[in-house]
Amino acid sequence: MSNIQIAKARRLRSTPYTSRIEKQGLKAYTTYNHMLLPAAFEGSMEETYYHLKEHVQIWDVAAERQVEISGDDAFKLVQLMTCRDLSESKDGRCYYCPIVDDQAGLINDPIVLRFNENKWWLSIADSDVILFAKGLAIGKNFNVKIVEPTCDIMAIQGPKSFPLMEKIFGESITDLKFFGFDYFDFRDSKHLIARSGWSKQGGYEVYVEDTSSGLELYDHLFEIGKEFNVKPGCPHLIERIESALLSYGNDIDLKDNPLECGFDKYVNLDNDIEFLGKERLKQIKSEGINKKLMGVMINLDNINMSQSIELKDNKNNIIGEMRSAVFSPTFKKVIGIAMFKKPFWDVGLEFNINIGGISTKGTVCNIPFI
Amino acid sequence: MSNIQIAKARRLRSTPYTSRIEKQGLKAYTTYNHMLLPAAFEGSMEETYYHLKEHVQIWDVAAERQVEISGDDAFKLVQLMTCRDLSESKDGRCYYCPIVDDQAGLINDPIVLRFNENKWWLSIADSDVILFAKGLAIGKNFNVKIVEPTCDIMAIQGPKSFPLMEKIFGESITDLKFFGFDYFDFRDSKHLIARSGWSKQGGYEVYVEDTSSGLELYDHLFEIGKEFNVKPGCPHLIERIESALLSYGNDIDLKDNPLECGFDKYVNLDNDIEFLGKERLKQIKSEGINKKLMGVMINLDNINMSQSIELKDNKNNIIGEMRSAVFSPTFKKVIGIAMFKKPFWDVGLEFNINIGGISTKGTVCNIPFI
Repeated sequence: MSNIQIAKARRLRSTPYTSRIEKQGLKAYTTYNHMLLPAAFEGSMEETYYHLKEHVQIWDVAAERQVEISGDDAFKLVQLMTCRDLSESKDGRCYYCPIVDDQAGLINDPIVLRFNENKWWLSIADSDVILFAKGLAIGKNFNVKIVEPTCDIMAIQGPKSFPLMEKIFGESITDLKFFGFDYFDFRDSKHLIARSGWSKQGGYEVYVEDTSSGLELYDHLFEIGKEFNVKPGCPHLIERIESALLSYGNDIDLKDNPLECGFDKYVNLDNDIEFLGKERLKQIKSEGINKKLMGVMINLDNINMSQSIELKDNKNNIIGEMRSAVFSPTFKKVIGIAMFKKPFWDVGLEFNINIGGISTKGTVCNIPFI
Repeated sequence: MSNIQIAKARRLRSTPYTSRIEKQGLKAYTTYNHMLLPAAFEGSMEETYYHLKEHVQIWDVAAERQVEISGDDAFKLVQLMTCRDLSESKDGRCYYCPIVDDQAGLINDPIVLRFNENKWWLSIADSDVILFAKGLAIGKNFNVKIVEPTCDIMAIQGPKSFPLMEKIFGESITDLKFFGFDYFDFRDSKHLIARSGWSKQGGYEVYVEDTSSGLELYDHLFEIGKEFNVKPGCPHLIERIESALLSYGNDIDLKDNPLECGFDKYVNLDNDIEFLGKERLKQIKSEGINKKLMGVMINLDNINMSQSIELKDNKNNIIGEMRSAVFSPTFKKVIGIAMFKKPFWDVGLEFNINIGGISTKGTVCNIPFI
């Protein structure tokens, strides 16, 4: 932590859950999509990590904002923005989709929810995709409506999310497949619930459109979740790096293309769908990439990153940059995500790194770590 | 202040000045354009306010990011995005320009710098204008290049900014007119300097492209500024509200149009320039606006806002929302910026407001306050 406070204002929007989480031991915020996103609760990083892996947590992830694209040209616009082939996509399913510009630079990596061919939500990472979509739609004269709906997601994450949610919504919720979504009743309100989330520990995301019902559900989850040792939580740095859940703005950004980030299976160049950057991506694929995202391991027992750290070879040449890192209790080492220049991304390659004045060595490895 | 820490990460970019300001008594950050923006230094709000009004402060405002638009269609694209007529704009001048979408919703309110007809910088408020510009340019097939250049602004603000800057750059810098910009030498480097800034106390903004020279200049300003009582600072809530320097995301947003925000003189509907939302703005102008941004004064000696507060009439109907507010030592009252529904925006109109459980009354007034 930085020991520096966050100055709140309307511009960094609060969420419906803000007053609750601040009473539940919140210690730090980050901001995300112009909104407050909890970043740490009481307890050490390791304690909250093991809790997430063993029990169940309720997360205020309202900062995952939705871009709703509807209308006759909705499918055309959504497909234009992503290099993932959505021609076979199905209603009621979620799709992880890199959004790229005409130069194949990554603009965002949302989960795309398909309601039907004419209504889509992009559940976005931290950049104003709504402005890109609006600009494209205006420029192309598409018949679409683009809005940010009132929707404040709460996530239920961890292995005990399944019995907890079953207790509220009945057995039918356990039938939901990974990345499926449907509507489920809570008291007098219907909630869109997806089997998804920013952890690899399993769980659900409730897309709360009816705020007052959502707050009742939030409180109810804590009341009846006691037997499952429920706690408030938030996306967890250790868990997400071990699982290599990439974070837009941290690990990947506009200067990277999806082939450099290991998104090859979401880059569909072999049929006639139309999307931005397609020719550029074909060219990159045929010429080969010039940098590549990899894992790193470093023999250190602590790190606190706030910006990229250069990685060097023995001749002091920069061969890459580490973008995220954390001490992993599983590996008893610092693990991180780093972008390496060609040809320095071979697994096992050793590099030099200086962290807070300490010079040490690290090695390249594959991701995910677990 | 919130007493809640900010969690730093690469995604909330540090600036070249970050390590310096953290040694200079920084107490709080906000985030802005995915970057850290200092929000408070040591000393009370009133102390730093009077210091800014009497002396000179150096501000890390690198979070004012630039969107560079260059190429044959650069002027066409910039004009398409703003309702302000730029047909008579001149090289080397800054223009405050509301950016609006096709529905006349406000996307940003940058200072636009015209280098020449084929090169412009948009010095943006807090939204990803680069994505809107890219979307439009791709959709319209414009011949432009759109990038975020390496440029980290430091501002020199306050009445003594003039003698301080003259001491470094010589008399020629005092010839710079308000909203003019030019290049000035510091040691072996040229810096773009504009007479502008996020205060009404006068001063300059140095658009630092040569980072190492900029850091030398930063240190030099503190060394030779001692005689002017120079201190580190940041955009100041009291000063900006008194001066009604509107803040995008706080006072105005995508759901507002420029006529509701008092930007009438920047809405040029009477000639044949082409920009987004023009027909919609003509319609709004002929039908009249349905809400209006005004000042408010409230007899209280303290306020700490983090979201909109409802304003009500005596029948408990919501008649508006206050979006920013602060205790003003000048007026010995809380002053704020509020959006009122029609027809409740008359100066002198009284309303009810509940702030932290305290019910009180306030009145509508004009802005700026000073």
